[in-house]
Amino acid sequence: VNNTEALKNIRIVLTRPSHPGNIGAAARAMKTMGLSDLWLVSPLQFPHGEARARAASARDVLEQAHVVDTLAAALEGCVLAIATSARHRELRHDVMDVRGAAREALAAATRPVAIVFGNEAAGLSADEAVRCAIWAHVPTSPDCTSLNLGAAVQVFSYELRMACAVAEVAPPAEFETATLDQIELLYEHFRTSMTTSGFYDPAKSGRLLQRMRRLLARTRLEAEEVNILRGFLKSLEKPRRT
Amino acid sequence: VNNTEALKNIRIVLTRPSHPGNIGAAARAMKTMGLSDLWLVSPLQFPHGEARARAASARDVLEQAHVVDTLAAALEGCVLAIATSARHRELRHDVMDVRGAAREALAAATRPVAIVFGNEAAGLSADEAVRCAIWAHVPTSPDCTSLNLGAAVQVFSYELRMACAVAEVAPPAEFETATLDQIELLYEHFRTSMTTSGFYDPAKSGRLLQRMRRLLARTRLEAEEVNILRGFLKSLEKPRRT
Repeated sequence: VNNTEALKNIRIVLTRPSHPGNIGAAARAMKTMGLSDLWLVSPLQFPHGEARARAASARDVLEQAHVVDTLAAALEGCVLAIATSARHRELRHDVMDVRGAAREALAAATRPVAIVFGNEAAGLSADEAVRCAIWAHVPTSPDCTSLNLGAAVQVFSYELRMACAVAEVAPPAEFETATLDQIELLYEHFRTSMTTSGFYDPAKSGRLLQRMRRLLARTRLEAEEVNILRGFLKSLEKPRRT
Repeated sequence: VNNTEALKNIRIVLTRPSHPGNIGAAARAMKTMGLSDLWLVSPLQFPHGEARARAASARDVLEQAHVVDTLAAALEGCVLAIATSARHRELRHDVMDVRGAAREALAAATRPVAIVFGNEAAGLSADEAVRCAIWAHVPTSPDCTSLNLGAAVQVFSYELRMACAVAEVAPPAEFETATLDQIELLYEHFRTSMTTSGFYDPAKSGRLLQRMRRLLARTRLEAEEVNILRGFLKSLEKPRRT
């Protein structure tokens, strides 16, 4: 199931961003995760060359960004606003981590949903904060709690995409797994070679063969790897180059 | 259960980073998530004012960073290396998303574990790639697959911290994992033995050594298994019983 359609209804709102580089980084972070709807509330400098530079191939997201004066304007038409600020503890109601908040956002995203980021230093004002139903919390080290704005947008956008994903991360099928019969023959080959070389001595070698069996059993070798190892063992049976 | 202690054993390795700003962003991303061990393989420019500026309050991470010449040097003492490059499909075996890879990393992090990031444009070389047992995949939009390097470090570091919350206590260390250095010596031993036996011929054997490296990298051998295999290879060097 491809659920990424819902990402089109996610609006990323940056409130009074100070650094144009962060706006560009946010645009790139969004685009890599399949988001495109960027709203800027009273940006200090925009447009700006550094925003374009950091956006890299996501310049289209910048060019289509909506610039408005107030958070209220950025939330027009939205059914849910989620705040990501660390401030205003006293105003928070529904606090959850970003993973949970991303799921809530997607569940509501049959219509526009806003993810609201505060200014780099000051966060959100109290007036802005009260407009947000959910407070999303990024777990951080107590020693350093302040994510870069672009990085915060990246983490949230990533969680939004993960929430969509019925992940299609199938390993490439180009490698054929060895059968247990092939593994057994490889084990026998090792046993013979180790005996011939004098490395394995039934009277003295204890659990050696058991360890070899365990190693081969848990490795899940590919057929070609079995061939390589058996080819090597076979080469030992010929007169040695010296 | 607070399991964030394991984060101290996570090593973030940036391979040939081109942009000093990305090094600073990586340092900040790390510190917010409780990581501190940064390794730089042949950075183009370091130290650099832009790295310091982007690091913000994570300058200590930059100042303590290890600068080395090769990926091999950066992996010294590690028991597991995880790659995060989109290249080298043909060498991959254990492919998983970043969330799964973060769990694997933490499970192994009773000893050092490396998370390896490639150069911004070129990624990892094939020689570097084969040293990594796990390939971590960040799900992206098909329209824009390239995360900024600092943003990729942020996402991975975030997943590592999130994984701490759910991580089980590491299983009892009945079997000691081999270090990557021990694996490297085993690989060299195989190469020598295969050359001596005539099985490996540089002119004809194609990707044989690469396949051996890949096999050894993904198997996560135990120290005793390395000893067994090297003992066997050593026994081949003596005059043969026939």
